[in-house]
Amino acid sequence: MTEFRIERDFLGEKEVPQEVYYGIQTIRAKENFPITGYPPHPELIKAVGYVKKAAAMANRDVGVLPKKLANAIIQAADEVIDGKFNDQFIVDAIQGGAGTSFNMNANEVIANRAIELLGGKKGDYTMVSPNTHVNMAQSTNDAFPTSIHIASLYLAKRLTTSLSKLLQALEEKEKEFDDVLKMGRTHLQDAVPIRLGQEFGAYRRVLQRDLKRIERALKELYSINMGATAVGTGLNAKPEYIDKVAEYLRELTKLPLKKAEDFVDATQNTDAYTELSSALKVHAINLSKIANDLRLMSSGPRTGLNEINLPARQPGSSIMPGKVNPVMCEVMNQISFQVIGNDQTISLASEAGQFELNVMEPVLVFNLLQSLSILANGLDVFRELAIKGITANVVRSRELVENSVGIITAINPHVGYEQAARIAKEAIDTGRSVREICLERGILTKEELDEILDPKEMTNPGIAGARFIYGE
Amino acid sequence: MTEFRIERDFLGEKEVPQEVYYGIQTIRAKENFPITGYPPHPELIKAVGYVKKAAAMANRDVGVLPKKLANAIIQAADEVIDGKFNDQFIVDAIQGGAGTSFNMNANEVIANRAIELLGGKKGDYTMVSPNTHVNMAQSTNDAFPTSIHIASLYLAKRLTTSLSKLLQALEEKEKEFDDVLKMGRTHLQDAVPIRLGQEFGAYRRVLQRDLKRIERALKELYSINMGATAVGTGLNAKPEYIDKVAEYLRELTKLPLKKAEDFVDATQNTDAYTELSSALKVHAINLSKIANDLRLMSSGPRTGLNEINLPARQPGSSIMPGKVNPVMCEVMNQISFQVIGNDQTISLASEAGQFELNVMEPVLVFNLLQSLSILANGLDVFRELAIKGITANVVRSRELVENSVGIITAINPHVGYEQAARIAKEAIDTGRSVREICLERGILTKEELDEILDPKEMTNPGIAGARFIYGE
Amino acid sequence: MTEFRIERDFLGEKEVPQEVYYGIQTIRAKENFPITGYPPHPELIKAVGYVKKAAAMANRDVGVLPKKLANAIIQAADEVIDGKFNDQFIVDAIQGGAGTSFNMNANEVIANRAIELLGGKKGDYTMVSPNTHVNMAQSTNDAFPTSIHIASLYLAKRLTTSLSKLLQALEEKEKEFDDVLKMGRTHLQDAVPIRLGQEFGAYRRVLQRDLKRIERALKELYSINMGATAVGTGLNAKPEYIDKVAEYLRELTKLPLKKAEDFVDATQNTDAYTELSSALKVHAINLSKIANDLRLMSSGPRTGLNEINLPARQPGSSIMPGKVNPVMCEVMNQISFQVIGNDQTISLASEAGQFELNVMEPVLVFNLLQSLSILANGLDVFRELAIKGITANVVRSRELVENSVGIITAINPHVGYEQAARIAKEAIDTGRSVREICLERGILTKEELDEILDPKEMTNPGIAGARFIYGE
Amino acid sequence: MTEFRIERDFLGEKEVPQEVYYGIQTIRAKENFPITGYPPHPELIKAVGYVKKAAAMANRDVGVLPKKLANAIIQAADEVIDGKFNDQFIVDAIQGGAGTSFNMNANEVIANRAIELLGGKKGDYTMVSPNTHVNMAQSTNDAFPTSIHIASLYLAKRLTTSLSKLLQALEEKEKEFDDVLKMGRTHLQDAVPIRLGQEFGAYRRVLQRDLKRIERALKELYSINMGATAVGTGLNAKPEYIDKVAEYLRELTKLPLKKAEDFVDATQNTDAYTELSSALKVHAINLSKIANDLRLMSSGPRTGLNEINLPARQPGSSIMPGKVNPVMCEVMNQISFQVIGNDQTISLASEAGQFELNVMEPVLVFNLLQSLSILANGLDVFRELAIKGITANVVRSRELVENSVGIITAINPHVGYEQAARIAKEAIDTGRSVREICLERGILTKEELDEILDPKEMTNPGIAGARFIYGE
Repeated sequence: MTEFRIERDFLGEKEVPQEVYYGIQTIRAKENFPITGYPPHPELIKAVGYVKKAAAMANRDVGVLPKKLANAIIQAADEVIDGKFNDQFIVDAIQGGAGTSFNMNANEVIANRAIELLGGKKGDYTMVSPNTHVNMAQSTNDAFPTSIHIASLYLAKRLTTSLSKLLQALEEKEKEFDDVLKMGRTHLQDAVPIRLGQEFGAYRRVLQRDLKRIERALKELYSINMGATAVGTGLNAKPEYIDKVAEYLRELTKLPLKKAEDFVDATQNTDAYTELSSALKVHAINLSKIANDLRLMSSGPRTGLNEINLPARQPGSSIMPGKVNPVMCEVMNQISFQVIGNDQTISLASEAGQFELNVMEPVLVFNLLQSLSILANGLDVFRELAIKGITANVVRSRELVENSVGIITAINPHVGYEQAARIAKEAIDTGRSVREICLERGILTKEELDEILDPKEMTNPGIAGARFIYGE
Repeated sequence: MTEFRIERDFLGEKEVPQEVYYGIQTIRAKENFPITGYPPHPELIKAVGYVKKAAAMANRDVGVLPKKLANAIIQAADEVIDGKFNDQFIVDAIQGGAGTSFNMNANEVIANRAIELLGGKKGDYTMVSPNTHVNMAQSTNDAFPTSIHIASLYLAKRLTTSLSKLLQALEEKEKEFDDVLKMGRTHLQDAVPIRLGQEFGAYRRVLQRDLKRIERALKELYSINMGATAVGTGLNAKPEYIDKVAEYLRELTKLPLKKAEDFVDATQNTDAYTELSSALKVHAINLSKIANDLRLMSSGPRTGLNEINLPARQPGSSIMPGKVNPVMCEVMNQISFQVIGNDQTISLASEAGQFELNVMEPVLVFNLLQSLSILANGLDVFRELAIKGITANVVRSRELVENSVGIITAINPHVGYEQAARIAKEAIDTGRSVREICLERGILTKEELDEILDPKEMTNPGIAGARFIYGE
Repeated sequence: MTEFRIERDFLGEKEVPQEVYYGIQTIRAKENFPITGYPPHPELIKAVGYVKKAAAMANRDVGVLPKKLANAIIQAADEVIDGKFNDQFIVDAIQGGAGTSFNMNANEVIANRAIELLGGKKGDYTMVSPNTHVNMAQSTNDAFPTSIHIASLYLAKRLTTSLSKLLQALEEKEKEFDDVLKMGRTHLQDAVPIRLGQEFGAYRRVLQRDLKRIERALKELYSINMGATAVGTGLNAKPEYIDKVAEYLRELTKLPLKKAEDFVDATQNTDAYTELSSALKVHAINLSKIANDLRLMSSGPRTGLNEINLPARQPGSSIMPGKVNPVMCEVMNQISFQVIGNDQTISLASEAGQFELNVMEPVLVFNLLQSLSILANGLDVFRELAIKGITANVVRSRELVENSVGIITAINPHVGYEQAARIAKEAIDTGRSVREICLERGILTKEELDEILDPKEMTNPGIAGARFIYGE
Repeated sequence: MTEFRIERDFLGEKEVPQEVYYGIQTIRAKENFPITGYPPHPELIKAVGYVKKAAAMANRDVGVLPKKLANAIIQAADEVIDGKFNDQFIVDAIQGGAGTSFNMNANEVIANRAIELLGGKKGDYTMVSPNTHVNMAQSTNDAFPTSIHIASLYLAKRLTTSLSKLLQALEEKEKEFDDVLKMGRTHLQDAVPIRLGQEFGAYRRVLQRDLKRIERALKELYSINMGATAVGTGLNAKPEYIDKVAEYLRELTKLPLKKAEDFVDATQNTDAYTELSSALKVHAINLSKIANDLRLMSSGPRTGLNEINLPARQPGSSIMPGKVNPVMCEVMNQISFQVIGNDQTISLASEAGQFELNVMEPVLVFNLLQSLSILANGLDVFRELAIKGITANVVRSRELVENSVGIITAINPHVGYEQAARIAKEAIDTGRSVREICLERGILTKEELDEILDPKEMTNPGIAGARFIYGE
């Protein structure tokens, strides 16, 4: 049988199961917000652990928090950092109140654990108070955003590592396929030859820029507003404390955190998140385009383009035997769609800030951390289970090129666009080859055509057979 | 040399060029909102003409507007309806003030024209006042939304007509292609046979539902809030006037307009617009998918799927001779993207309503009317210049089907999924046909295979060769 | 120590822990898609249980599935419906492959449970095959969408029930506050008087329309495509089976399900989902606007509008004592933002359909079911913990009205807009009351002003003091 | 009577009015794309003028374009740059074909003007061919994106200039209002005091970051792909030409343009646009938040917060005399919504790129250029007509602060959060002041309260009255 303790706040009292570390405010929040069923992200719990630890250290140093209390709080926070109390963080990811409930959940868990460490009984907040001691010189409005910054930076580190590895994998394919000739397509219509390595090079380069964009966006997160307290004015936070808490957080987290230049600004504005989310969105758009290209190139096996093969990862159909689908690309598309949709939610939440605070931060951070996580997760499997195993159908790809009409473009400088267009039209209408028609009509000699129509040559800048027109 | 008259309002005075019909408030708005450079949509101008005319008639009838004034206002409004003063509507499409500037622009143009008709001099508002007379018993907050409803309904009529014609065109293709066998594809991978007519049937049906959705959404626009005045309470609007103005508007516009049930609701809420925009968005999504399919099926001419041909509408490239692109599909895609983006703007504007009014209506209506227009425009050319001229590459499509491995699915009921999968894998790996392998291994007889592997048969429900398993 | 069984498919073999009910394809999918960490929604698992049960019954009836197998499958499916195997559904909510992995997870769990029921050993698919028997006459492409329809309908039922209850609660407030006079505001600026009950009436009415919109959208989900199999042509599905499976599903689920008119259409198009999601988005927009209004009206306690009080649900600040925040409104806003963002993801996923299938359905359904769930959850607490407990600050609200300048609008018909504007400007500039100025200037008599400036009167249609102008 | 000339391409012939400079392909495009009715943005026309001029110069230099032709083309291009032919650019802003129609419109206008300059007759393309000469060594796929880059950079320059000026205006207000005490609000609830200057400082800082973000994004646009030709491989473009054309463009445009590192990448990827649009979106979000704050602070005049006054720009209502609305803020909100919606369209267009090209660029650039323009336009009037004229209601703001309960937060360090909460609750419930209750109960002395409750002190970091607790 569960035993209960009674806890009180200025709104009344609640029964709290004796064994739990959270308290009355967490229970209120649990009742108020049965929304998604998702708990806070583990990285966010870890992050708030760091925040509470650093604050206790700084408050101790500036002489406002007695050492004994500080030590207990620090040890409790360490246990939170280690994930020992993850199951005590029970407030829904989407919650009203700008994160107060999450912050109070942390304050209560740490207070009760500290009380326990000091030999007291959970709920005896005269020993250690969640507000007066654990939250000392803090407000949700600085402790929560700072936790978000830390959690985002940790998750982003995973993401940028995964992305870097993907870049390597793409570069390897770029080299491997440097000689593989294939038809270039614009408007899904035959254009002019290109090399498969060039395609992968283009993929690598755009994702390389994504990496830079994401890394640039992360820098904005280095600025934290610990010490801002309620509205950014620093009420109840001593200047020495403010300096120390940032210093401690930098040390503890090993992240290049620094005090924001202006706390009022840093407390009310959420542009650091929208900027990061935008960078993730741009990345998602690029990933989706690449996934689409790979799905098109691997379409087939018999009635599609069939220029490349993706690794067979799982039977593709419950009814069609032998079918294999580009599932790793498909999941990349879907992750992209999720990230783009999340950016929308984040934008709406950001726009809804009012005056000194953005109270919509919980839904914002829920989406931001999800985007960071699923992208990192997705990139890892996309790289390992799709990109690395791609093989090229070299012969088929070359045949498609040689059979195409698009190579006629190289004839332009020799006969003018208008005549070339007439030859092309005839080739398409009759099914004959460009070379055949040119020869038959005496438009160009065999020697000229050999040089001009070399598809490999067409994949590099220059006018093939320029010497026939302009001399050497 | 331009001559000026001086006009006054409670904020001061302005010089107004003597020849123009608009007045001081229009000039203020012109100065305040040099945003897009786009004037109001002509349908919106026409609509406000109806609103002002109907209001004058109703006010006359209930005895608050002298007949002489009423007649002049009615005639002036008629000229607005006829588009004679379109160049006098100079306020930007995106404007602060919930449409007050547009409404005052209308009030001023009509007042000045009425003054002129009564033999006065433009600007002499003691004769006919834009506010007291033209806007009598009205507020921007009822006159503007009512105008939006009317304009939207007119534009929507064009759209639904265009969509209906597209449905006919698709139905004709559905019949024309009923016998054209082609490969069905899922995941861009070869699946099982289907008929091209079935594809077009699916396109028709989803767009048919779009038509219903749009028509359903339009019904919400029939409710108008004329008489709501400032906040929906009807202050300064006599009940008899309220009834009459709705009646007159119904007559004049030939639209089934009716008095909203609750004016406070009708004045502050913009859900009728978001609902319509959502229906347009769903339609855009479906159109984009269809355009994508058509672009895929017509990809080629030599290195793509090449199952259908779109009409050649224009040379496709400034450099590649003979290239023809699916431009009518591409423009359909782009229209769809615009409509989806517009829905986003509309959603944001709608969410920003506060208390008794949504002051963001100007940007909302700008996007809504644009979506309606460009969809109607796009559907007309998509139908005439793309859909109607599509031809099928019957022979190639059939070859692709017969060459495929996907037809193995029909063998499932005979040998089980697991054995079928092994045969399929062998076929893909070796390049041999399913039939060949089945025969060689004695898995099925030639007679059985002839019946089971008939691709045409596969495009209808049933188990091919069921009699071999279950008897007749 | 975990014991393993070996399972095989056409791509190779895998070790499967002996005790689990899922098999090789589930394990492959688990490896391929470590994306969100979220399992499928429980309602989706329940729904697929119904689908598999109905299919087994229909297949049994038409004589293609032996009774003994059918009975075992049916019993296993019943246990899935009862949630007994929820922990065996381990494939990530976001997955490549259009739901094949989820469908195969279901097929494998049911097959293994059926094998067990028949006295066999898990993994012995010669007894009951996940593909050949459990998935008989089905494809992911009909079984998965049908499951989505069922799950969505169940969740939507919860939502519409919650919404209906909210409508009642709003109606009660509408009546309760019918006499409470307050300032109407447009542009956040003082407008003219309104009654608080009218505000709640407007909220009720717009949400009432939302309810209708959602219910209308649900009707599209009644059409299911069981029997479509791979691409909608019904390959391998007997017509009698197709009729029976729809019938059984209708009976089992108690939902008015019916066979789609055209399976090719129903298999490739996802407009039923985008339509529903759009309806949810419109609803979210309206809810967010209402939540914003309530937050504004309850702003204070001392430096805001302070016209209403929301129930105090939890201490609002970790640092500011006694602070109480409108957390239930804030969570409603956030849910709305999530739903609007989800609609974006759903739109992107829907647009990405190609040919016979939309392979992006997993992310689509993840977002759709989430939107349905969190809205229902949110509405329940919003109603119980916010709306029902709202109280009005009657005295303060009335004072604000009486102190306002906006009431001058009622004077318009008596003195004309232009003179009224001058009086208003003077009142604002000097801080004096409209009444005072009118009296002092002899513009209107006390008797006239008493009748014209009665604020209660202003909340209903009509011209106050009309008799002074037009006679009785 | 219009005279016509006949022009031909490989699809047939068309009548072209003799006096116009465009030709057959422009006419085809005009027929194909009657979508928005909007012509291309003038900056885009100017930009393509530069592109054609630079290409002619480079082609001349490398010896493939005869000098005489080059000179004529250069002069014609100069006239395009000067805007002399703006009315000859008649192709719709939204068009299929990836910009080919716009590019051909430019090629035709320049060719015909060059022919004219050379003494020929418009349409005699044997003299100067739109494709062979004006488009020499170019493709739409390099000429169009390069034009977009140039046009975007010019428009962005306007935007960043406007934004910089806004920053100055905000900084002036920041200083002007440095002493104005007002209530800080979180959750729209009274929090703790802040200074109005601090608010404006926060607005300035976030917009300062926006400026940096936009400027950073612009750098990506410096890379141009002239010489990429059809698919980025540089087919038909001599390496020396490629170098020269970039050099000439840099000189002509005075923009720091440079050759892209990889043309295949630069031709198919549109991330430079999505990055810029994202930066604009983040900016829009921040602007909207600021506009919302200003609208809230200026709400009133009698029944709102009424802490600041916005300049009265226009009468705010057609019915409510004397009403003035925050129209310049409202238009800023609406511009923001448009920009956010445009970003959505741009994202969709970007994601739809396939293989070597993104054919959706026309709709993308239409939205991007619009976002740049309307933001610049909006910022100018927002600054001049709103920000600069803001005045503070100093007395009222200070009264609100002094009357508030929120100042109790400063008491926390002295009595603990729990006791402070009880005092606060009593103050709110009874309407009494915090100071009064503290004194009456003997919780703090008058001297202590004077020091602790000084609101000005609360707007800076630190613990007020710390000496009472910790000594000096």
